[in-house]
Amino acid sequence: MDDETFERALQAIAADRRQGASELARCALDLLAESAERVPAVDTEALRRVLARRAKALAWVRPSMTPLRRLAVLWREGLDDLPADLSQAREQLVASASDLAQRSFVATEEAARRAAELIGANKAILTHSHSSTVRLVFEHLAGKDVRAIVTESRPLYEGHALAAALSKLAVPTTLITDAQIALAAQSVDLALVGADTVCADGSVVNKAGTRLLALACREAGLPFYVCCESHKLATLGDPPPELEAMDPAELGAPAWPYVRVQNVYFDITPPELVTAWVTEEGVMAIEEFITRG
Amino acid sequence: MDDETFERALQAIAADRRQGASELARCALDLLAESAERVPAVDTEALRRVLARRAKALAWVRPSMTPLRRLAVLWREGLDDLPADLSQAREQLVASASDLAQRSFVATEEAARRAAELIGANKAILTHSHSSTVRLVFEHLAGKDVRAIVTESRPLYEGHALAAALSKLAVPTTLITDAQIALAAQSVDLALVGADTVCADGSVVNKAGTRLLALACREAGLPFYVCCESHKLATLGDPPPELEAMDPAELGAPAWPYVRVQNVYFDITPPELVTAWVTEEGVMAIEEFITRG
Repeated sequence: MDDETFERALQAIAADRRQGASELARCALDLLAESAERVPAVDTEALRRVLARRAKALAWVRPSMTPLRRLAVLWREGLDDLPADLSQAREQLVASASDLAQRSFVATEEAARRAAELIGANKAILTHSHSSTVRLVFEHLAGKDVRAIVTESRPLYEGHALAAALSKLAVPTTLITDAQIALAAQSVDLALVGADTVCADGSVVNKAGTRLLALACREAGLPFYVCCESHKLATLGDPPPELEAMDPAELGAPAWPYVRVQNVYFDITPPELVTAWVTEEGVMAIEEFITRG
Repeated sequence: MDDETFERALQAIAADRRQGASELARCALDLLAESAERVPAVDTEALRRVLARRAKALAWVRPSMTPLRRLAVLWREGLDDLPADLSQAREQLVASASDLAQRSFVATEEAARRAAELIGANKAILTHSHSSTVRLVFEHLAGKDVRAIVTESRPLYEGHALAAALSKLAVPTTLITDAQIALAAQSVDLALVGADTVCADGSVVNKAGTRLLALACREAGLPFYVCCESHKLATLGDPPPELEAMDPAELGAPAWPYVRVQNVYFDITPPELVTAWVTEEGVMAIEEFITRG
């Protein structure tokens, strides 16, 4: 895989609006495995240099999404401990990418299982955007008399994909505009979202609109749960979250002389609006973030 | 104007998504004036009977919008005091419809002037949906170094029409998705919205999403102003506000077996989230509603 092909794949991850942070982190690991297997290199040292560069590029390609950074950095640590033999080095790096992707997948599955356990049967659940983790939670809850309210999630309507998935699970689902969130909060038992990043203080970076959902939950006295694998937890040393802005054209608005279009994809929900964070390690309350900080 | 023509005009008002409550109330008065002038009637008593029926139909055609009810009811009171001469009766009713429409227009203008005075120069203002009253406020503030953030307002994007109007006024404007409201609240001085109805306790019926805006303002410590003519104030005897739901097809979502689409157009913002209500009579704080109730 030459630099040009890698660069194209990197840009595809930068531009991806369909997949969430965990899914894209696993795409990044696939790309690193492919690079480890195929990038031209005369020896292990040359391989190490080019792969270190690629891992760094992938770590920062989606600044709102911590798992890309975290998993790319974990994988990159393996570069410090490679056998001298080039093909053995390649093999080891492919195996470690596959292992990390598997750990991420298993962690997400377990986080979803724990969230489903916490929520229980016979509930109406409001969610925003399309989180693959939230979809897994519904897989656990399907057939247990749950129903869902799903926002369309402008600008690219990823809520439609979640509605389609819930329909396949036979979960009775209501699709609403994002603007109806406060109305919807009056007819559910709780809200559940995924996350792109959970900051060291417990703040949640997720699709824009999540903070409005959390505010509506607080007003309605509803639990607001966040569910994600622990690779999404940033640590104290991490830089403050950057909120990616995307192409204004996604809003499909006409052009007017004095009007600019703003398309920020993420917002930050402060920890005091979150009832509990659920990862593969268990259910955390705000105290655990205060202890860390 | 025969019954069939009237019924068609009535249905057009029921289906109108472009105009706000004040504008539609004035359309209703135009329709009553036209009816008073042209409906077939053998004498004043026959005229009174058919017009009473039509005024009642118009009063309830948009249950979320109090000014239609209020102005139609005010006009209908004139039916109790008509001259026996049929053509004089017709003239009197045409004049009273025109007078009420003018009073509504002048009241809206004055409410907007007072809101502009309250807000003052050099402000960043966040608004939701497209209120003709809010547009008038911006006409007063244009050239006074104000800027606007406008939501697109799904499903039918009436925020686009407001953005176009603000651009004509050369007001620097940012257009956002409804989901970005909490983000936008961090970069403005205040929020300003119109209303379809202000209930007797001060609750505000307005385009769905308004309550989210008010919650975001409270969290950000920002003033949240409501500006409207006093014909939008419901009274204690009025029925509780009904939140109109519109055609689910407006969301443009595909159909899935277990998914229904919900398209409620209005939500209710509780009075404790409102900093002040501005009408042609002045600026009201919450105490004035408590006194009434």
